[in-house]
Amino acid sequence: MRDFRNQIARGFSPYLPGEQPQGAGWVKLNTNENPYPPSAKVLQALGQSAEHPDLLRKYPHPFSESLKELIAQHYKIPADFVTIFNGSDEALAVICRCVLDAKDDAAYAAVSYSLYPVLIEQAGGHPQPVPMHNSDGLTLRIDQNALREHTARLKFLTNPNAPTGEFLENDKVVQLLNNTESLWVVDEAYHEFTRKPSMATLVSDYENLIVVRTFSKSHSLAGLRVGYTICGNTFVNAALNAFKDSYNLDSIACRLASAAILDAEYTQSTVEKIIASRETLLQKLSDLQFSVLPSSANFLLAKPPASISAEDLYLKLKENKILIRYFKNSEVSEFVRITIGTEEENTQLLSAIKKIINGSNG
Amino acid sequence: MRDFRNQIARGFSPYLPGEQPQGAGWVKLNTNENPYPPSAKVLQALGQSAEHPDLLRKYPHPFSESLKELIAQHYKIPADFVTIFNGSDEALAVICRCVLDAKDDAAYAAVSYSLYPVLIEQAGGHPQPVPMHNSDGLTLRIDQNALREHTARLKFLTNPNAPTGEFLENDKVVQLLNNTESLWVVDEAYHEFTRKPSMATLVSDYENLIVVRTFSKSHSLAGLRVGYTICGNTFVNAALNAFKDSYNLDSIACRLASAAILDAEYTQSTVEKIIASRETLLQKLSDLQFSVLPSSANFLLAKPPASISAEDLYLKLKENKILIRYFKNSEVSEFVRITIGTEEENTQLLSAIKKIINGSNG
Repeated sequence: MRDFRNQIARGFSPYLPGEQPQGAGWVKLNTNENPYPPSAKVLQALGQSAEHPDLLRKYPHPFSESLKELIAQHYKIPADFVTIFNGSDEALAVICRCVLDAKDDAAYAAVSYSLYPVLIEQAGGHPQPVPMHNSDGLTLRIDQNALREHTARLKFLTNPNAPTGEFLENDKVVQLLNNTESLWVVDEAYHEFTRKPSMATLVSDYENLIVVRTFSKSHSLAGLRVGYTICGNTFVNAALNAFKDSYNLDSIACRLASAAILDAEYTQSTVEKIIASRETLLQKLSDLQFSVLPSSANFLLAKPPASISAEDLYLKLKENKILIRYFKNSEVSEFVRITIGTEEENTQLLSAIKKIINGSNG
Repeated sequence: MRDFRNQIARGFSPYLPGEQPQGAGWVKLNTNENPYPPSAKVLQALGQSAEHPDLLRKYPHPFSESLKELIAQHYKIPADFVTIFNGSDEALAVICRCVLDAKDDAAYAAVSYSLYPVLIEQAGGHPQPVPMHNSDGLTLRIDQNALREHTARLKFLTNPNAPTGEFLENDKVVQLLNNTESLWVVDEAYHEFTRKPSMATLVSDYENLIVVRTFSKSHSLAGLRVGYTICGNTFVNAALNAFKDSYNLDSIACRLASAAILDAEYTQSTVEKIIASRETLLQKLSDLQFSVLPSSANFLLAKPPASISAEDLYLKLKENKILIRYFKNSEVSEFVRITIGTEEENTQLLSAIKKIINGSNG
């Protein structure tokens, strides 16, 4: 059979997303979804959409103008600074494709979102992972100096970082941005769980900054695929608009994301519940002799006690229909990443872990 | 302000989609949408989705497995041959990105889907428009010999062609495919309006064939963004799966497209109405001294009588809140493209055209 792929595609290992079991009965703590349903107003907007068949029949607005306006109002920035994408993954891919020339370097913390090197390679660039370092007695910290001083044309900062949960305050991020030779992507996918102001409000001051955000986690809309960029650089914004798919967001998603951003009170309430549960779960895992990294996100990275390996824990929990994330053959293969669930789910998890550790499983 | 764009993005003219007026009261015959609403079963599935908040909260299946299966059953092909995309535009973009090496040629009929050169350039390739030719007294025909003999690595055939409406029967398409040095994309976006079998059923026989289809036109789902490829080449399929966005289709779109493909009877009924209206409209425009190209799609390409230019007709209809498509500065700037509307819309259009031609407008 003839191989029509180009050189990049031939040498390419695809991104491996977390498992998405389709059956019922799973406690699913493996892909950082919000454990609470979306706002009742979102569900209401969804139900009412059926009365508007033209939403389906006609093409959507190519730039999702109505949603752009709402996001701009939310951050008090001009609407032109906002570009809407089919999930923040499309945003990250488009950034790589319109910024990187062939073989350009793009840098990111070695332990961060594993999609970055995939997208950099697809765009013909060279992925440059910057090794993590240990400081202040903490492991797997972002090496801010090394990342700032790297000569890469494009740099990614996941903030809070995934899967470690580390958060850099805005004054630290600003120190990075002062390396103005690079274009910085600050990926705030988990930012709501920090309770801190977004870098989005500072894009007017930093022409080398693109903030990336998503409705997936904070607004319980991972199934909808809605993300966006906020950027004050008109060249970059022109390229993002030109390189995204022409009609990249469907009309239903646009409508529901709009309902979600308007119900800030509900978003805040689920975020607060998750933060509270995170701190409880961290404490209880520590009580069970796990080493848990402090987290500003909706997940914990935790090393199990010496009596069980991370992989065994993952597998045994899976036997109990509890899914957590294990990154085989990675720099964090001694850890598991646990998404914060509902209080009930977290209790089920802890109970299963206790049984497994005590050897009474199966 | 610093320009961070790469060379491709700096030299780039974006695709210009048709106008999408957001207000009410427009007769919208400019972007080849289906004038009839989607199936009642699709709207029912949409309304019922509100009872399943997990559809929104959780990530979708990364390969939209359930929809793949239904499409495979529809064409009686293996599910592995099918890849689902966020609209067929994403499919076309991904094909360019995983097939073309820098500066590779990609060929297409000079008058066809104007997105092809945009996507080829984005992927670093060289767009190679193959000039149209006149034969058998017909204008703007695809030059099949020239397209077949072009040495381009990748070739696009829109079938039926847009905006001309020309259709090549499968035996003609097969003659093109026998140039096996090239990978052929047969874009069947408008194929339902031909009443003929899709090339999808022949992909097992041609390893250099990718068929691209969409739910936008035939299933009245342009607002949902669902397209797919059918291909028997395992190398190509691996690359399509690796290069698409990881979770490219949202859960609601997957569910509604599934409902749509299952209601084949309804799809067929709207397709038949559109075909009948197309033939009526063609006749009535001819009676008004328009030169109309025969069309196997859901639109007509028509040259107005000498008394009015295409641009003036477009503008005057727009004053009457009737939108048709005019391609300024193009090879078809003497023509207008008219999407087939409902019988009522077509009657409104014809009545407005008569008034404009008789000089009684305004």
